[in-house]
Amino acid sequence: MPTAAPSIARLFNFIGGSTGPWRVDRVDCVAGEPIPTASRVSVVAGTLAQLPQEASWLLRGITSNERYVVREEKTALVSKQEGLGREASTRAALIPIRKNTAWWSLSQDERRTVFEEQSRHIAIGLKYLPAVARRLHHCRDFGPDEPFDFLTWFEYAPSDSAAFEELVQALRASPEWEYVDREVDIRLVREGVQL
Amino acid sequence: MPTAAPSIARLFNFIGGSTGPWRVDRVDCVAGEPIPTASRVSVVAGTLAQLPQEASWLLRGITSNERYVVREEKTALVSKQEGLGREASTRAALIPIRKNTAWWSLSQDERRTVFEEQSRHIAIGLKYLPAVARRLHHCRDFGPDEPFDFLTWFEYAPSDSAAFEELVQALRASPEWEYVDREVDIRLVREGVQL
Repeated sequence: MPTAAPSIARLFNFIGGSTGPWRVDRVDCVAGEPIPTASRVSVVAGTLAQLPQEASWLLRGITSNERYVVREEKTALVSKQEGLGREASTRAALIPIRKNTAWWSLSQDERRTVFEEQSRHIAIGLKYLPAVARRLHHCRDFGPDEPFDFLTWFEYAPSDSAAFEELVQALRASPEWEYVDREVDIRLVREGVQL
Repeated sequence: MPTAAPSIARLFNFIGGSTGPWRVDRVDCVAGEPIPTASRVSVVAGTLAQLPQEASWLLRGITSNERYVVREEKTALVSKQEGLGREASTRAALIPIRKNTAWWSLSQDERRTVFEEQSRHIAIGLKYLPAVARRLHHCRDFGPDEPFDFLTWFEYAPSDSAAFEELVQALRASPEWEYVDREVDIRLVREGVQL
């Protein structure tokens, strides 16, 4: 059957194992079950022909339209944000989260109220732009049994590490996070770069 | 890796071919490319071990949280709607649609405005409840190259066929439908039932 015109990559694979450009610096299991150990992480776009033999885990997600951002916020985000892959961004974080049934049972307006009016999720992210670049990947509608709902990938310079910590702590302290029932925080360092 | 607790079926497969309880009565290609011919359709929940050999097409989608419905609307929908599988519902429609890039580039508030304030999508659906039962399946985030963004499955009694036609025409005449770039309308009759 004909498919939609090919577009920019939307599907991304995060592979934990013993190879890859990103060295695992630290893994914190913030809520729910941990994931297996890995010393390196690779990020690969597109459909994988097969999983690398040495992989200990594979997390997949797809970029999509924003679910909560209104026009004014979208304009502000687009004007301040920078892309991934900046040379100085030798620090990264991969933070998979899952939200509970109570969250997914809320109506759209209720989710927006918790997300922004109560938790300032967009405002907090905006405060750390362009220092902290990010890409959100959705998993919840990727299949019926995905281990997480979202994978967020962040990149920043070592000098912005403290700012990134503030961002993460502010979100975790928000009302939105009461709906998070699984979260793993994987901190990474890009090797082969003069630090 | 541990996965989320198994829940009610979210993934559904619509298989067009020469077998299945639903006989294809009519197929209209409303916009964009048609799909191959099939004389029968089956609906199968869950992950398929393999595609039936005789299948001419497979469309897959996953039920998910609503994207636009506010609490008051959700309460009204839940109080009026009835489930699929009613004995008298011997008519069905499978309507796959795809929306264009302009739609997916809108912010959440802009999409909501087109969807409901301008197009009355929720209000129109509500008007035909409980006569027309429906289930919406999302495909857009199921993979990067899905042929459609949504599959909606409708069921109704033969005596509600004219009402269903009104519903479909009202939606197609709405501003929201200016963003639909592919749509196929597959009408079905459940066989083996006294009509």
